[in-house]
Amino acid sequence: VNIPQLCESIVKGDTTALAKSITLLESQKEEDWALGKELLSQLPVGENQSRRLGFSGPPGVGKSSFIEKLGGHITAGAEKVAVLAIDPSSGRTGGSILGDKTRMEALSRHPLSFVRPSPSRGHLGGVTSSMPGVILLCEAAGYDWILVESVGVGQSEVELVQMVDFFTLIAQPGAGDELQAIKKGILEHVDMIVVNKIDQDNKLATITAQQYLSALKVIGGASVPVKKCSALTGEGMDEIYQFYQSHSYDRGRRNEFLTHWFRSLIQSEFRKRLASHPKWKKEIHQLEETILQQKLLPHQAVDELFQRLGWTNL
Amino acid sequence: VNIPQLCESIVKGDTTALAKSITLLESQKEEDWALGKELLSQLPVGENQSRRLGFSGPPGVGKSSFIEKLGGHITAGAEKVAVLAIDPSSGRTGGSILGDKTRMEALSRHPLSFVRPSPSRGHLGGVTSSMPGVILLCEAAGYDWILVESVGVGQSEVELVQMVDFFTLIAQPGAGDELQAIKKGILEHVDMIVVNKIDQDNKLATITAQQYLSALKVIGGASVPVKKCSALTGEGMDEIYQFYQSHSYDRGRRNEFLTHWFRSLIQSEFRKRLASHPKWKKEIHQLEETILQQKLLPHQAVDELFQRLGWTNL
Repeated sequence: VNIPQLCESIVKGDTTALAKSITLLESQKEEDWALGKELLSQLPVGENQSRRLGFSGPPGVGKSSFIEKLGGHITAGAEKVAVLAIDPSSGRTGGSILGDKTRMEALSRHPLSFVRPSPSRGHLGGVTSSMPGVILLCEAAGYDWILVESVGVGQSEVELVQMVDFFTLIAQPGAGDELQAIKKGILEHVDMIVVNKIDQDNKLATITAQQYLSALKVIGGASVPVKKCSALTGEGMDEIYQFYQSHSYDRGRRNEFLTHWFRSLIQSEFRKRLASHPKWKKEIHQLEETILQQKLLPHQAVDELFQRLGWTNL
Repeated sequence: VNIPQLCESIVKGDTTALAKSITLLESQKEEDWALGKELLSQLPVGENQSRRLGFSGPPGVGKSSFIEKLGGHITAGAEKVAVLAIDPSSGRTGGSILGDKTRMEALSRHPLSFVRPSPSRGHLGGVTSSMPGVILLCEAAGYDWILVESVGVGQSEVELVQMVDFFTLIAQPGAGDELQAIKKGILEHVDMIVVNKIDQDNKLATITAQQYLSALKVIGGASVPVKKCSALTGEGMDEIYQFYQSHSYDRGRRNEFLTHWFRSLIQSEFRKRLASHPKWKKEIHQLEETILQQKLLPHQAVDELFQRLGWTNL
């Protein structure tokens, strides 16, 4: 890999070079990651300040359709848009859930767009340790809008909130009881709620929107806007697009993002370095044997490892 | 905290002592975690070999009702059951999503049961680093069945698979397109699929069950059972209970669990120790300042930190 050449191609807007670079950042291989870091250091990152938007919501509410429609507005305005989807891949095989599904077909064919699923790898620190770099790469490649979609609820969603300037929860008319309970937990992270599918039941959508407004009031989020739209017919989408356009990012939040990324990298780098070091790789393997022989519990083995590393006072 | 006394109370079946001990393991405070580790070391863990079952499925399919009904069969058989729910708490406030919802009311009142939501904390290694210890605590307290419920899809689900002997996916009649896509990703981890809510539409449930069987065949999981039930009426639940009863755990899988726990603890212990060490806490803070002044990118700051720690060759 020729890093300076790759940098040049990325800045020129070469999507093949961009895709290749993202693969380096997402790789589990130490040598790829080293190249990825080199690349980030050489790129003019932080100069193009894009809009970083995060989207989440339960399966079936139409997140992809919404993002594709929004992407259409962005490209129609002659701006470049990158869509990154956090894809909770299988922990056992590393296969991608979304990989086999052709998503956002129209948008992904547009010359101003770049659509890419990012596997969350099923290992700790997966999304958080690679996604921030991927966002910076896309910015260096001149994308004005970075839309990050999280599939499902849970850990990856909490991590996503920390990576974006603005977090939108997508809902649909008349959500069930358990959905409400889950949403209550993310409500406090939410910067906007969009009730999609008004084409299906506008009346119910209005009731649902009001329910969200009430719930937001309870948790002190009365200023969070709740909007309605149909990603299918496009109704309401232009207003939402203009809302995003008028929103400027918060420096404090971007600083939090950098700090969070740093702390996450400390952990994942430690794991990577330990696992690739011949001596400690062997020590860890020996301690695992001891655990399996039921001579030590895992946390006792960790204490032992840290003692062997000489970090008793760390 | 008097550890020997706490141990004694746990082994005697005192649920207040158990709850208190779980809180120690889940605590973010270094001193609580130290006590929790001490407790695990003193308890007769690994002697009572319980059944560890994991449950997941999209919101609204009736996971809690299913688990409550199953718990009813277990307690009717005079066995003790612990229900642990992985609760994707808010990363910002640490508040619990499920905490405000009274769940499994009948089961939680039964003297042979113990029901407890466990916050996943919204930080890396949250569930994986505390849940294994919580499972061991429940086993030491004499629970014969440990039922762990994961809310939603994603990271916490992949981690759950690694912690249990048997993983059941709960579905409902006629799932939507996106649901199918997500389920395809977890299908390979699944040991059984249960289509719930046959009281609502038994015909559609049969079709859904057949669709899952076909999907399982495609990925080479033709031996995975697909069952139907109604957690509401209880139909089919006795057969499922008996199926779980007849299933014995696999030593290899428990070994994988121990190894995975160990590796996860190495990371989280490292983070905790670094964060609580006066010198390194200060160094990290200084590097954060450098990052915020845009003088270093986070991964460059990590390299710098490891250099200062003297781990250049690690």
